Amino acid sequence: MSGLFITFEGPDGAGKTTVLSAIAEQFNQAQRRDIVVTREPGGNQISESIRRIILDPKNTEMDVRTEALLYAAARRQHIQETIQPALDENKIVLCDRFVDSSVAYQGAGRQIGEDAVYQMNQFATNGLTPDLTVYVDVPSEVGLARIKAHRDVVDRLDAETLSFHKRVRAAYQRLAAAHPDRIVTIDATKPLPEVINEAKLLITNAIKRHQ
Amino acid sequence: MSGLFITFEGPDGAGKTTVLSAIAEQFNQAQRRDIVVTREPGGNQISESIRRIILDPKNTEMDVRTEALLYAAARRQHIQETIQPALDENKIVLCDRFVDSSVAYQGAGRQIGEDAVYQMNQFATNGLTPDLTVYVDVPSEVGLARIKAHRDVVDRLDAETLSFHKRVRAAYQRLAAAHPDRIVTIDATKPLPEVINEAKLLITNAIKRHQ
Repeated sequence: MSGLFITFEGPDGAGKTTVLSAIAEQFNQAQRRDIVVTREPGGNQISESIRRIILDPKNTEMDVRTEALLYAAARRQHIQETIQPALDENKIVLCDRFVDSSVAYQGAGRQIGEDAVYQMNQFATNGLTPDLTVYVDVPSEVGLARIKAHRDVVDRLDAETLSFHKRVRAAYQRLAAAHPDRIVTIDATKPLPEVINEAKLLITNAIKRHQ
Repeated sequence: MSGLFITFEGPDGAGKTTVLSAIAEQFNQAQRRDIVVTREPGGNQISESIRRIILDPKNTEMDVRTEALLYAAARRQHIQETIQPALDENKIVLCDRFVDSSVAYQGAGRQIGEDAVYQMNQFATNGLTPDLTVYVDVPSEVGLARIKAHRDVVDRLDAETLSFHKRVRAAYQRLAAAHPDRIVTIDATKPLPEVINEAKLLITNAIKRHQ
């Protein structure tokens, strides 16, 4: 018997992090101490150091494959220090972004190739795959409009072009079509409370089936 | 027409770096400006930052797969900033350690698995393979005795056990057997001047064939 591993995925502006935060807050108020909410780099010293290299604005020469390998290295350490120990204690892990993000962003967005990025990440995960992935889907134009409306500072990824966002979303949709037993899509053009309820229901049902 | 990519490989204490330095010095005195001698991390800012994370003694929690991914990330950036540009200018690149080192040290030495480390590194190299690999071979006991005799400070890798060194050497020997057209073995129990001459001859012949 092991824990339950649930990931949250989606393009920028889908509201994925807002939805996960709302659900985490509800579980927290219900004093569900068996639920661990995390996101990469996950707070460990090594992954945080790796993240600083990726985000350092001085590193303008960074190759896209170097970046993908660094994300995978930070992911590996996050798995080893946070995710796997929680699963070993039979906990439920809710993780904001995982391998699907690399496949969508680096594989399709940055055009390295989705299969190449997936295969390389298998080395990082050593086969650890989410039991459930909640994919919060939004059209690229809607997502980008939300980002512009809600943030003061537009970060590097958000500054990418619409065509980048469209490639990312198309990759997510291909992943969802290829893994219907793992990935469940939620339409994030619906009102936020509906999206939160739908995601919450998916998670509580997955927990019930697991127990 | 592209340049010629030659790598130097071998277990610790084989004298690989000494041999390469002697050859580099000879080429330098002959004013061969078409020859580039390099080693990972290669002096670029990103790879050096990655190397600092790998070698930081505070990072005691580093997982072996995280380490292998970081070496691959540093390698990718070294290829992009140094090796590939030199090959594109039709130069001859002599590189101290490359993918074979990761297969031997991380794959066999740290027991991740040689094929897994090789495959993951294919993502980093995007298929770039040496035209010639000079493998300087030495029995593990001889190599370790040389390290102890010649160095004041024993670094982390040298402090590993004899069985680690034996796994590394066995992996190198398997690689040499599997790639006889690329990897040429030199017996480094011979006197150093002989080893240097043999390596120099291999390289000059490879350059002649290439031109």
